[in-house]
Amino acid sequence: MALAGGVGAAKFLAGLVRVVDPAEVTVVGNTGDDFVLHGLAISPDLDTVTYTLAGVANPETGWGLAGETFRAMEALERLGGESWFRLGDTDLATHLYRTGRLAAGASLSDVTAELAAALGLSARLLPMSDEPAPTLVHLASGEQVSFQEYFVHRRHAEPVSNLDLAPARAARPAPGVLAALEQADLVVVCPSNPLVSIAPIRAVAGVEAVLAARRAATVAVSPIVAGTALRGPADRLLGELGHEASATGVARLYAPIAATLVLDQADAGLAEQVEAAGMRAVVTDTIMRSPDAAAALARVVLEARSR
Amino acid sequence: MALAGGVGAAKFLAGLVRVVDPAEVTVVGNTGDDFVLHGLAISPDLDTVTYTLAGVANPETGWGLAGETFRAMEALERLGGESWFRLGDTDLATHLYRTGRLAAGASLSDVTAELAAALGLSARLLPMSDEPAPTLVHLASGEQVSFQEYFVHRRHAEPVSNLDLAPARAARPAPGVLAALEQADLVVVCPSNPLVSIAPIRAVAGVEAVLAARRAATVAVSPIVAGTALRGPADRLLGELGHEASATGVARLYAPIAATLVLDQADAGLAEQVEAAGMRAVVTDTIMRSPDAAAALARVVLEARSR
Repeated sequence: MALAGGVGAAKFLAGLVRVVDPAEVTVVGNTGDDFVLHGLAISPDLDTVTYTLAGVANPETGWGLAGETFRAMEALERLGGESWFRLGDTDLATHLYRTGRLAAGASLSDVTAELAAALGLSARLLPMSDEPAPTLVHLASGEQVSFQEYFVHRRHAEPVSNLDLAPARAARPAPGVLAALEQADLVVVCPSNPLVSIAPIRAVAGVEAVLAARRAATVAVSPIVAGTALRGPADRLLGELGHEASATGVARLYAPIAATLVLDQADAGLAEQVEAAGMRAVVTDTIMRSPDAAAALARVVLEARSR
Repeated sequence: MALAGGVGAAKFLAGLVRVVDPAEVTVVGNTGDDFVLHGLAISPDLDTVTYTLAGVANPETGWGLAGETFRAMEALERLGGESWFRLGDTDLATHLYRTGRLAAGASLSDVTAELAAALGLSARLLPMSDEPAPTLVHLASGEQVSFQEYFVHRRHAEPVSNLDLAPARAARPAPGVLAALEQADLVVVCPSNPLVSIAPIRAVAGVEAVLAARRAATVAVSPIVAGTALRGPADRLLGELGHEASATGVARLYAPIAATLVLDQADAGLAEQVEAAGMRAVVTDTIMRSPDAAAALARVVLEARSR
């Protein structure tokens, strides 16, 4: 099973399901990024994983749908509406479906499973919680904003002083999350942002304790290569929040829950520091330039567990 | 000023603004049909009037937008979602805008004015109320459904035993509604369904009394021609709810609030019955086959007042 954020995790998972039976894969997705916009319930990380595993994601961006049009957004711009979060016409259907089902009393778990089934996924995707658990971003300016306001609207360009995970801490895990963690042969922490994608999942009530108990079975993949995030602001955020923006910094964050860290060849020189942080270091090529590369990385992760 | 439902009213109003200064026209729109679908706040009648006066309505249906695409609905169908209310991709922008603004604390009046301004309307469009006032439809089967469930989803094919306007009765008129009624030189009851479009406006707290006081200044246009509604189920509904499905039946409903009824040449033989019902009868061609025909009808309505 795997803990997943958005684009990086989705790419890794698309590789994983090429080397193991997808029906045996359970993914727990971050919902700390979820938000309501124009009245629609939007779950960006769950959708990115779903679209990618369904093979319908936009290959250029990694999020959204391939062959997407933006007629609704273009019309919304003409009306003077908020259009900073670009919802494609086909993607809108996902949010309309989710919002309608939630209003009818379905849980986010239900909806996530229904969307996955409709798109033909064999892997099981669970939200970390069925309860809203929005990550609150405190900017260095003193302002507090939602995650998507920080991440998309302001293009993660402003320094962050704190990520408040109190809502996640107050949320119960979705049905199946703890059981999946307890029973999995292997727990993978996907190459996602440790602070904004993985930390909210860890914060959900009861999850960190189960993760710690499964430490020996857990392999994390560093999202930081040569001190740089492959996408997003993970490197900057690590520095702003007092961590080292390196595989070593990642190892210090993951040491309580994972025995093994897979890091990039570019960081081979950090293997000793990673081991000093308490994690076994496995060095390989972690940059997923192609589905084949993602599958090769997944193979290394599987082997890292079995060693 | 005018009381308006959807397509029939919009066509008439498009004619009216060709013969009078649109800046002097105030339209009070029915919101008894409003509903929330997929989390979106939808105001079908307000949108139909706005789109038509802006010249962007679909000329074939009278509702929705010209040149519309339905990519979101097609995707929603593939997901197994509710797609009986066809929201076009461009039309979706209107509902996204409205829902977002309402969530931000704007009133429906604010939003309606903003949409009208964005689409270049010169006429003023007011919702009958800023408070939700959904018409509740009691079916003869004993079931109670929302108006759109009855009208669109079930294609108004099931007999109705009662239209419950209690929510409208509990709603306060939107700012400007009573003043517009009180100050207008002419009040037009557009050719709309008397029971589902005009009755909800009349039911809003305080409106009927002001309408009754402006009776001499009020001209209604019969939506029933030769016993048949030009569109929608007005004829059937009139019968089901104990009224006569004719210009005479319409006259009996409107006599308390309007001195004059404009009826179609096909119904010239009913003029005496209309007068017996207490309304002055003005006979003309009421079928708006073209914008010119709508303008001609508007001219007759203007003259009917000035007589």
